[in-house]
Amino acid sequence: MDATSRIETVLSRAVDHAQGRAAWRGGALPSAPPILAEALRYAVFPGGARVRPRLCLAVASACGDDAPELSSAAAASVELLHCASLVHDDMPCFDDASTRRGRPSVHSAYGEAIALLVGDGLIVLAFDILAQASAAAPERLAPLVSAVASCVGAPQGIVAGQAWESEATVPLEAYHRSKTGALFIGAAVAGALAAGADATPWRQLGEKLGAAYQAADDLRDALGSPEELGKPVGQDEAHHRPSLVAQCGVKETVGRLEGYVAGAIAAIPACDGRDLLEALILSEAKRLKPKALDQAAA
Amino acid sequence: MDATSRIETVLSRAVDHAQGRAAWRGGALPSAPPILAEALRYAVFPGGARVRPRLCLAVASACGDDAPELSSAAAASVELLHCASLVHDDMPCFDDASTRRGRPSVHSAYGEAIALLVGDGLIVLAFDILAQASAAAPERLAPLVSAVASCVGAPQGIVAGQAWESEATVPLEAYHRSKTGALFIGAAVAGALAAGADATPWRQLGEKLGAAYQAADDLRDALGSPEELGKPVGQDEAHHRPSLVAQCGVKETVGRLEGYVAGAIAAIPACDGRDLLEALILSEAKRLKPKALDQAAA
Repeated sequence: MDATSRIETVLSRAVDHAQGRAAWRGGALPSAPPILAEALRYAVFPGGARVRPRLCLAVASACGDDAPELSSAAAASVELLHCASLVHDDMPCFDDASTRRGRPSVHSAYGEAIALLVGDGLIVLAFDILAQASAAAPERLAPLVSAVASCVGAPQGIVAGQAWESEATVPLEAYHRSKTGALFIGAAVAGALAAGADATPWRQLGEKLGAAYQAADDLRDALGSPEELGKPVGQDEAHHRPSLVAQCGVKETVGRLEGYVAGAIAAIPACDGRDLLEALILSEAKRLKPKALDQAAA
Repeated sequence: MDATSRIETVLSRAVDHAQGRAAWRGGALPSAPPILAEALRYAVFPGGARVRPRLCLAVASACGDDAPELSSAAAASVELLHCASLVHDDMPCFDDASTRRGRPSVHSAYGEAIALLVGDGLIVLAFDILAQASAAAPERLAPLVSAVASCVGAPQGIVAGQAWESEATVPLEAYHRSKTGALFIGAAVAGALAAGADATPWRQLGEKLGAAYQAADDLRDALGSPEELGKPVGQDEAHHRPSLVAQCGVKETVGRLEGYVAGAIAAIPACDGRDLLEALILSEAKRLKPKALDQAAA
């Protein structure tokens, strides 16, 4: 099974579990309330580029991937947490974004109460599936849960990143590292841990990729179109959020993006999966560059 | 250390960790954004009766409590999830409650964005501290994470319970079992699992206590005063939420409450800690009965 099919399959099984349609490991549970069940699936499918779980699986593969059920769960866990953060981030008290991935955001489609619960439910599910998949390597569960928790919670995960937006003074680097970088670090680290490997050499790859992604995101918010992104643009300026583009201008941000991509490739440890990881990074870098920049360069 | 001190100590250490003031096991992390850090503590301290963690520790104690760091973490985990559910439940898209425990609710004090993040952060923290405390008994982590996840997530935990409120037709028993009962079951089950015991005999105790608590809660919402409860009353009627009082009337609800309390006591398995558990149940039953009922009977 290729990485894409593997990710979609494990995500679907996870959502089935939360819907009560089928337990992770056999045995049906009582059904979830129907609107919640539908909204849980809506928040996860169809997905975006699934770049975080692909990174997680690529790292696991480079580390031998000797517990594929656990690495699949780790990849799904990271993606579920990403989906949860999008659902909550789109809500009126944050970005108030009515569209996401080219269609109504979860709160636009199902209301705020259900959107809040979908985010909560996906966070819980992310930890649940790690536990359910850990039977073959129970000693790997604690470091995996800690790694995933630290990239999404406080003091330095996504929750902290979002919370910087409520402060009068925002340290741009800490803000970006928490809001975006942390989950890339989490994806790389979780891939290594799920395969029973030392995660240390993989942290820097996650860090550089996360920084590249944030620079690209700031560029796309400033230069992209709603059609290209499937969501509103100009949000950083509208919400007075700190951004690299606002701080350094477009040209400097493009330069940093290119530097981060080069840094990510340089950070890949010597391993069998080096080519796969390099190809993944380069294809993401191409995908993320706003079309306006290519047109300007042409 | 008595149970109360133990619970407050472990909760405080957990919040310290989320604030970045001190890691769970040594080593400081970068600080969380200051407003988030303050709001995380505000959501957890001062607490209510801490009945769920007390139940968890009482069950662990009855089962030998041979890994006290893990049972303390399990108790704190259940309480953090309870606090998270209160923060999210008070938000404008649910109950829109401006007070909780006799002072402004989290969103009233810190705004909706921070309240949403506090709830998310506490959910993540609840799993993080289980992992951090599992070193002495790593094989107990997976069942603990699953037990805690199932009592708070979808399809049958708190998230599902809240989501029933968005449905046109609400099955009262499933609604109450998910919204309130599940976390009592989780507390009892987690106490047994943290002590390495079979959780099966403890489920029914959690179920009966949860049902008693929900019946008492419905009575207090219908008959209590904001001063007595420290939060708005009459919420079930105002939000057209199904309640036992609305369905069966006060007298029948009081009868059921008494039946559940008797059932909870009868469900305590034969064990050394039987007296402690019975005392805990009886003191809770007394505390939860609305004062108006005593006055009516006097």
